[in-house]
Amino acid sequence: MQQIPTGSLVLRETRPSGTVVVLPGRVEVGGRDFVVMAGPCAVESAAQIEDAAEAVAAAGCPILRGGAFKPRTSPYSFQGLGEQGVRLLLAAARRRGLLVITEVLDPSELPALEGVALLQIGARNMQNFALLKALARLDRPLLLKRGPAATVEEWLLAAEYLLAGGNGQVVLCERGIRTFESSTRNTLDLSAVVLAKQRTHLPVIVDPSHAAGRRDLVIGLSLAAAAAGADGLLVEVHPRPGEALCDGSQALMPADLRELMRRLSPVVHAVGRELWRAPQQLMVAK
Amino acid sequence: MQQIPTGSLVLRETRPSGTVVVLPGRVEVGGRDFVVMAGPCAVESAAQIEDAAEAVAAAGCPILRGGAFKPRTSPYSFQGLGEQGVRLLLAAARRRGLLVITEVLDPSELPALEGVALLQIGARNMQNFALLKALARLDRPLLLKRGPAATVEEWLLAAEYLLAGGNGQVVLCERGIRTFESSTRNTLDLSAVVLAKQRTHLPVIVDPSHAAGRRDLVIGLSLAAAAAGADGLLVEVHPRPGEALCDGSQALMPADLRELMRRLSPVVHAVGRELWRAPQQLMVAK
Amino acid sequence: MQQIPTGSLVLRETRPSGTVVVLPGRVEVGGRDFVVMAGPCAVESAAQIEDAAEAVAAAGCPILRGGAFKPRTSPYSFQGLGEQGVRLLLAAARRRGLLVITEVLDPSELPALEGVALLQIGARNMQNFALLKALARLDRPLLLKRGPAATVEEWLLAAEYLLAGGNGQVVLCERGIRTFESSTRNTLDLSAVVLAKQRTHLPVIVDPSHAAGRRDLVIGLSLAAAAAGADGLLVEVHPRPGEALCDGSQALMPADLRELMRRLSPVVHAVGRELWRAPQQLMVAK
Amino acid sequence: MQQIPTGSLVLRETRPSGTVVVLPGRVEVGGRDFVVMAGPCAVESAAQIEDAAEAVAAAGCPILRGGAFKPRTSPYSFQGLGEQGVRLLLAAARRRGLLVITEVLDPSELPALEGVALLQIGARNMQNFALLKALARLDRPLLLKRGPAATVEEWLLAAEYLLAGGNGQVVLCERGIRTFESSTRNTLDLSAVVLAKQRTHLPVIVDPSHAAGRRDLVIGLSLAAAAAGADGLLVEVHPRPGEALCDGSQALMPADLRELMRRLSPVVHAVGRELWRAPQQLMVAK
Repeated sequence: MQQIPTGSLVLRETRPSGTVVVLPGRVEVGGRDFVVMAGPCAVESAAQIEDAAEAVAAAGCPILRGGAFKPRTSPYSFQGLGEQGVRLLLAAARRRGLLVITEVLDPSELPALEGVALLQIGARNMQNFALLKALARLDRPLLLKRGPAATVEEWLLAAEYLLAGGNGQVVLCERGIRTFESSTRNTLDLSAVVLAKQRTHLPVIVDPSHAAGRRDLVIGLSLAAAAAGADGLLVEVHPRPGEALCDGSQALMPADLRELMRRLSPVVHAVGRELWRAPQQLMVAK
Repeated sequence: MQQIPTGSLVLRETRPSGTVVVLPGRVEVGGRDFVVMAGPCAVESAAQIEDAAEAVAAAGCPILRGGAFKPRTSPYSFQGLGEQGVRLLLAAARRRGLLVITEVLDPSELPALEGVALLQIGARNMQNFALLKALARLDRPLLLKRGPAATVEEWLLAAEYLLAGGNGQVVLCERGIRTFESSTRNTLDLSAVVLAKQRTHLPVIVDPSHAAGRRDLVIGLSLAAAAAGADGLLVEVHPRPGEALCDGSQALMPADLRELMRRLSPVVHAVGRELWRAPQQLMVAK
Repeated sequence: MQQIPTGSLVLRETRPSGTVVVLPGRVEVGGRDFVVMAGPCAVESAAQIEDAAEAVAAAGCPILRGGAFKPRTSPYSFQGLGEQGVRLLLAAARRRGLLVITEVLDPSELPALEGVALLQIGARNMQNFALLKALARLDRPLLLKRGPAATVEEWLLAAEYLLAGGNGQVVLCERGIRTFESSTRNTLDLSAVVLAKQRTHLPVIVDPSHAAGRRDLVIGLSLAAAAAGADGLLVEVHPRPGEALCDGSQALMPADLRELMRRLSPVVHAVGRELWRAPQQLMVAK
Repeated sequence: MQQIPTGSLVLRETRPSGTVVVLPGRVEVGGRDFVVMAGPCAVESAAQIEDAAEAVAAAGCPILRGGAFKPRTSPYSFQGLGEQGVRLLLAAARRRGLLVITEVLDPSELPALEGVALLQIGARNMQNFALLKALARLDRPLLLKRGPAATVEEWLLAAEYLLAGGNGQVVLCERGIRTFESSTRNTLDLSAVVLAKQRTHLPVIVDPSHAAGRRDLVIGLSLAAAAAGADGLLVEVHPRPGEALCDGSQALMPADLRELMRRLSPVVHAVGRELWRAPQQLMVAK
C-alpha cells in the first residue's frame, strides 16, 4: 500500500485545527456548519434546472449542483449541455441566492466555468494528474471525489497534488467504492470518512446518491454520514426523476429533499454541529 | 444475482411491523431500544473476562460478548478456551446481571452453550448450511453475521434457512465486507443496513470492530450505524487490549466504551430511539 | 494480512519435490499428468448422470464429478439427491471405470460417501473449521476449494488444518474470487495458481466453470490454467445443459468437452506435462 | 451494468475477421504473431534505457516500452524524465531496430511523442474522456489499458470513444483489477481477455507485470495469457531491478526475459500462433 510521506501538506498534523473552505456568501465547508449541496446529475434544460434550483432553495440548501460537462461511460449517452448548461445553472442559482458546484473535465473548460463556486474533480479523474496539476494553479475552491477504486491513501495523495501545487482550498468527497455487492451501485465507505477526518485537515463530504444508485437508501446514508463526522453532503435531486437523462433512479424528489433536511437536523445537532440553512428557511422554521 | 423468492419468510412484507427478538430480562432487539453488546473477542482467563464484564456493566450495556469456540484462520492461533471459556463467560455475566452472546461453530457444542442468551453464527459460517439447518430446529435466539463476501440477498437467504427451518428469533449483524481498501480490515457496509431494514422484518445490528479492525474508527462508525437505522451494536472491548490473544488492536478500552455510550445517546435519540441502559446506570446518569 | 507461520506443513520447503495425491487406478494428481475431472454440477437422475458419465469417459477423462449433497444459497433451490445421488454417481462411474469426486458438507454424510475417490470441501466451507478438523482425521484424499473471498494465504492456512490434523492427501482448487466484475460469475485468479504452486507442495487444480459462470469462456480459461502450471481441471459438463437443475449456463456440452481435451493436449505438452487419458482413449487416439 | 449499445463500432460483429493494428517494420498486433513489448517502467537514464533496449533486442522482442511522462500516485515520487526521456527512449530503440511504446498523459505532450509507434493510454486515464476524445482524432496507433476498477463493458466503451472519434488503430491491454487479494498488486483477469476477444474485433494484450507486482509470477502469467488467446504482452524488464526508480520488484531481469521468450514459444505454437522474433534472433535460434 502506498503510504503518504511524512511531512505531506495534506496530513492533519500540518494544520491540526482543520481547514475551512470559505465560499462566497459566508458558506463555509469544514467549519461548524453541515452543508448540503443538492441538484440534478446533469443540467438538462432551463425548465428542469429552474425547478431543481427552486427545490434546493426551498429546502434551505446553500449550493446547487448540476453537471454541464459530463463524463459518461458510453459515447452515446447524453454528454451534457456544456457551456450552455453552465449558463443555465448559474442563472438558476443566482436567481435564488444559491452557489454552484459543477464538474470540470479539462482545463479548457475553465473560462466557461467562471462564477462557479466549487469546481468538482470527478471520481474518474481523481488520478488524472495533468488535470490535478492544472487546477492546483488556480485560486478557486475544489472538490475532489474519491475514485471508485482508490484507497484512502491514494485519495489523500491526489489531494496532495493540489496542495503541493499551491491550492489549499480542497474539499474531499467520498462517493462509494467498487465491490462485489450488486444491490447498490457502489458501496459507501463511511470508514473512509472517519479515517480521512483523522488523517487530514481537509473537509470531507459524502455523496450518498452515486454510492447507493437508488433513491430509497439516500436518506438513511445521509444521516449515517452526518453521524460519522462528515462536513456535508452532495446529493442528487431532480424535479421529475422519471424524466431524467442521467441517473434518475438515484435522485431524490423535492419532497424527499425536504424530508432529508428535516431528519438531518437532529442528527447533525447530536454530533455537535449545525445544519446550514438559508436565512429565510431559518425564519420559516422558527 | 440470486434473488430472494417472492413469499420468502424473511421479507418485510410477511411481517410489516418488524420482528422483535426478546431476550431474558426484558432486553429486546429490534424494538424501540438500541442495544449495545460488548466484550472481548475471546475469553482468555477468569481475570480478563471478569474485568471485561465489569467494564461492560459499568457502561450500562446489557449483553456481554466473548468467544469460547473460536474460528481462527490459522490452526496455530489461539483456538479459544472451549467449554471452560463458556463457563467463565456465563459466570462473569451472571454476577453482573448481564446476558451472554457467544459463537457456535458446530451443533456438538450446544450442550456446553446452555445459558447463552444469543447464539452467534459467525461470518465464515454464514453459508454453512449444515449448521444453519441444525440451529433452525432450536427454540433459541440466533445472531447471523453477514459473510465477508456475501451480498445482502445471500445474507437474507441464509436467514431464510433459519426461518424456513422453524426458528424466527433471528438477529442479523453486518460486520464489513472484503474490498480492495487496506486501511481498514473490512469495509463496513452501512448501505446493507439501510437496505436490510427495508427488505426484511428482522432486527439488524452492526459490528464496527471487526469491520474497522482498528480502535480509532469504532466510535465514529458506531454513531453512523445508529443513524443509519441499526438496532444495536456488537462491539469489542478488552480491559487490556495490549495483552489480548486475539484482535487486540480493534478492541475499545473500558473508558472508550463509556465514551461510546455517552456519544451514542444523543444520536440514538435523534433517530427516535432509546439507548438501552441498565437501570442502575440510568439512575447513576440522573 | 495473515501470514503462514514458518515451519507450516503446507509450505513448499517442507516437501520441495511436491506432493502427488494418488487415487485408485493409478490416477495421480500433482505428478506428470494433467488430470481433468468432469461432470454435472448436481446428480439429477439416473439418466442424466449415466449420460454425463458416458460423455466424460468418451472424452478420456478419468474422474466423474457430480454433487449429491448440495450447498445452495436459497433453501428453496434443488438441494441434491443426497445418498441416492451418491449411489447413482458411483454406479455410473463404476460402469465406465471412472473415479468419483463429490462434495461433503458434514461429517454425518461420510458413511454415504464410501467409494468416493476424492472428497470435495466446497468454497463456502473453506473456513468451516469443524468440518476441516473432522476430515483431517480421515485417510482419504481431499480437494479443498478456495473460498470466493479468501486470500491465498488463508486458503493455504485452511489446508494447514488438514495437514496438521494428519491428512496430507490434499488437492487445492482455485475457482474464482468475488470482485466487482459482473460479466463473469467470479474472477478466475490464475495468479493464485502460479503463487500456490510456489508456496506449497500440494497439487493445485482449477475450476473454470464456477469461475466463469458461462460456457463460452471455459475452454479459453482451461488452456490458460494448464499453461499457468495447474495440475488439472474440475469442469462442468451436462448432457443437456438447458434442462439442468443447477448452473446449466456454465456447463459444457459433451462435444465441448471433447473439444476441450483436443485443445488442451498441445498446451499441456508445451509446458512439459501429459494430458491424462484413459487407455482406450489413447488407443483410439493413436 | 452498463451495456454496450447494439451497433457499436467496437463489437466483433462489425468486423468479424478482427482488427490488425499495423506498426512500422511489419510488426502486426492482432494477426498471427504473438508480440512481446518489453522494457522498464520508466526511462531513468541513458545507461539504463540503453541496457534495457539491449536486453529487449537480444531477446528478440520488437517493441521497447518505457515511461517518460509518468502518472504517479504521490507527487513526491519520481515523475519521469519527460521530453528528455522520450528522446533517450527513441534513440535506444532506433539503434537496435526496435519500435517504441510509451504513455501519453495529456495532448500537450504529443509533439514530444513524435516517433513513438504506439501511444499508451494508462489505466488511470481509461475514462479520461477529454484525453480519449483528443487521441481519437489522431492517425496513430493507440494502446488502451483497462482501468483497475473497470468492467469489461466499460473498457470496451472507452475504446468506443476512440473508434467513434475516428481512430480504429486500438490495441486493448488487460493489466489486472483491484480485489481484496493482497499477495499480488492486482488480480490479473484472464477471463476478461477471453471475453474481450469474443466481444470485440480489437487486439488484446496482457501486462502481467503490473498485475502481479512481483517478478516471480510474471512468466507463469505470461504463458497463461498466451494460452488464453492474448495477442501479445507488455512486460517490464530492467537491467538492474534493484536500482529501479519505479516498480523494480515486478521487473524481469534480462535473463528472465530470455527465459520467458524460450518458454512462450511452444505455448504460442500450441494455440496456433507464432511468437514474433526479430529476424536476427530467428537466425540465431536456428
